[in-house]
Amino acid sequence: MSSRVIPRDLLRELIVPSDSRIVLFVIDGLGGMPRPETGLTELETAHTPDLDQLAARSICGLSEPVGAGIAPGSGPGHLALFGYDPIADLVGRGILSALGVDFPLAPTDVAARINFATIDASGNVVDRRAGRIGTDVNRRLVAKLRGIRVPGLEVFLETESEHRAVAIFRAGDLSDALDDTDPQRTGVPAPSIVARDLGAEPTAALLNRWIVEARATLADEHPANMVLLRGFAQRPDLGTFETRYGLNAASIAVYPMYRGLARLVGMDVLDTGKTLDELIDTLETNWTRHTFFYVHLKAADAAGEDGDFDRRVRIFEEVDSRIERFLALKPDCLVITGDHSTPALLKQHSWHPVPFLLYSPNEIPDRCAAFGERACAAGSLGVFPAQAAMQLMLAASLKLTKYGA
Amino acid sequence: MSSRVIPRDLLRELIVPSDSRIVLFVIDGLGGMPRPETGLTELETAHTPDLDQLAARSICGLSEPVGAGIAPGSGPGHLALFGYDPIADLVGRGILSALGVDFPLAPTDVAARINFATIDASGNVVDRRAGRIGTDVNRRLVAKLRGIRVPGLEVFLETESEHRAVAIFRAGDLSDALDDTDPQRTGVPAPSIVARDLGAEPTAALLNRWIVEARATLADEHPANMVLLRGFAQRPDLGTFETRYGLNAASIAVYPMYRGLARLVGMDVLDTGKTLDELIDTLETNWTRHTFFYVHLKAADAAGEDGDFDRRVRIFEEVDSRIERFLALKPDCLVITGDHSTPALLKQHSWHPVPFLLYSPNEIPDRCAAFGERACAAGSLGVFPAQAAMQLMLAASLKLTKYGA
Repeated sequence: MSSRVIPRDLLRELIVPSDSRIVLFVIDGLGGMPRPETGLTELETAHTPDLDQLAARSICGLSEPVGAGIAPGSGPGHLALFGYDPIADLVGRGILSALGVDFPLAPTDVAARINFATIDASGNVVDRRAGRIGTDVNRRLVAKLRGIRVPGLEVFLETESEHRAVAIFRAGDLSDALDDTDPQRTGVPAPSIVARDLGAEPTAALLNRWIVEARATLADEHPANMVLLRGFAQRPDLGTFETRYGLNAASIAVYPMYRGLARLVGMDVLDTGKTLDELIDTLETNWTRHTFFYVHLKAADAAGEDGDFDRRVRIFEEVDSRIERFLALKPDCLVITGDHSTPALLKQHSWHPVPFLLYSPNEIPDRCAAFGERACAAGSLGVFPAQAAMQLMLAASLKLTKYGA
Repeated sequence: MSSRVIPRDLLRELIVPSDSRIVLFVIDGLGGMPRPETGLTELETAHTPDLDQLAARSICGLSEPVGAGIAPGSGPGHLALFGYDPIADLVGRGILSALGVDFPLAPTDVAARINFATIDASGNVVDRRAGRIGTDVNRRLVAKLRGIRVPGLEVFLETESEHRAVAIFRAGDLSDALDDTDPQRTGVPAPSIVARDLGAEPTAALLNRWIVEARATLADEHPANMVLLRGFAQRPDLGTFETRYGLNAASIAVYPMYRGLARLVGMDVLDTGKTLDELIDTLETNWTRHTFFYVHLKAADAAGEDGDFDRRVRIFEEVDSRIERFLALKPDCLVITGDHSTPALLKQHSWHPVPFLLYSPNEIPDRCAAFGERACAAGSLGVFPAQAAMQLMLAASLKLTKYGA
């Protein structure tokens, strides 16, 4: 834990609930890298007069989700922004998937992400994503797998999309100290589940029996003739935004994993459309019903993973054109940042700290007058741990009393 | 603990006592907020040519006393600057009050702040400060309360000022795990003391007997017909400036709480007058007798709590006019900072990190060339934990040897 983050019990004692409103707008994969031809990042290339003007009225910095040089997944990236410890409070992928399909998890359930995959006659993995089968095929295969019976084990299966599904295992007293069966490369067999400690061995044995049945069930399916399981996890008890911060929080997010993350920390998950305008419509409609809004825009991350620099530029320009809609609501605190960087040049999540802007009438605007990687580096927040962001938001919206006499 | 702060045992091993002299000048509530009409804070509005010139020859930054977004009380704000952990080493309000009236605390004494209050016929609190009675009335009531006898309990009472007094309870083996009796609002009764754990129940019972007697004693007094107790605490053993830093330290402070804090960390408490010139007179007179001086100027905080922006500006201009007196002493290290911010616009302590300037002939002046919130944000120290300040002062005055071979 950073020294800028105080212990959660202490923070709770300082909370003074109020009607002031906070908006945390997460532009997934916000940070980028300079295109060699221009030396400018996606955000620096984009024409963003409103964001720049807002930056001039805000405090800015670069948010580091997990630690120097560490590229976070979406789970830790978001949890850090939500004020949780991205290392101690890590949430397993299986749990994120299960929450994303609205599955009512019991505390002892173990969830895992399933990837449909292709194996050859000798059992070696030849495609870890089964050629990205269609979601309809996925649904048919999931229905087939639901027919498997393993004594003493209940299994719940749900399609996510393409080759991705989720399994929830229930058997009274399971452990999640289990290694993945995804070998992370091709040309080798998928291993059985290996228990990480003695106590997990009964669970590994039980679940391996299900995998053997699943392989047999899929034997005649091609290309999806195998399942790879990863991210075995049980639901962590993280405490909610209500109990930790006195916030009545809502999420405005489209994709299952982000809705699941929001649900995990006790947010109301609002129904919303996919476009930025629809996200903001939802924000406007629900404005008086909550004191904290998490708004999630996925497109910038997807464009980064596709390596599409220009699409990211266009997305940022679209965001810029909607800033006035956010400000028209007169939030007591508006943060615009990302959960991590996804530079088009790297086509993946990166470690680069993420542009961060906090606007509030109670803050002291710094000398950063543009919203971009280099501009924010000169902001008064400097490079700071994302986990501190909630404290800054609570302070700026006057929801914290003084500490100590 | 911040990664910039090393463990205290290790620091002690690196100490090389010397005659070099450090001055820590704490301008209480130094940091402010911009006045909307001008966009400038109190410190930025003030005409401070000497401070600005000094900043240009110094290293600057913004000091964060407790954590991002956390507004500190004066206790944690000062303890952090003194190099103590503002969370682990928290000192209760009762102890601060007791130290402030020069009470010789025994280790098992429990001290509490008393507020004289007004209750109505049904026992509900109607004024938590008894109309801020005069200090003379306070003294008369304290004398009356000294007549109370509770078997097995010694009680020492001292007037602070207006409605504030302090009680020290002594009974051999007391606990300070006690909840306040100040309900923090009016229209409800003051609760009895509640023990926070089983071990504290005998203490709660004993002290509640005293409160019953106090209420009866004050029954005919109006408006001060009740006492509210808060901040029950025992004296922590923090270690002194001598043992921790090899410093022969002295405080030059007027107000009781700050003198008490200084005494708690083993400083000699020097007698001094109230004005800035008198504080500096005391510094000059004692210059050869100590190697560390803590100088405390209260006025800026009081003006902030009064919401008086212009008075704060004048105070900062007065400080500026006296900077040459500090420099004439040729300190090996001079720090000018605050224990927290008290913006006139908020009329209370705030979370905004505090301008910090460290002048020493052994430092590398940075590019910050003015003493203000935004200027210091660009200093080479950046936003840094106040707890690291002592290490910086010791280093700059060449009192630390190298760590490791």
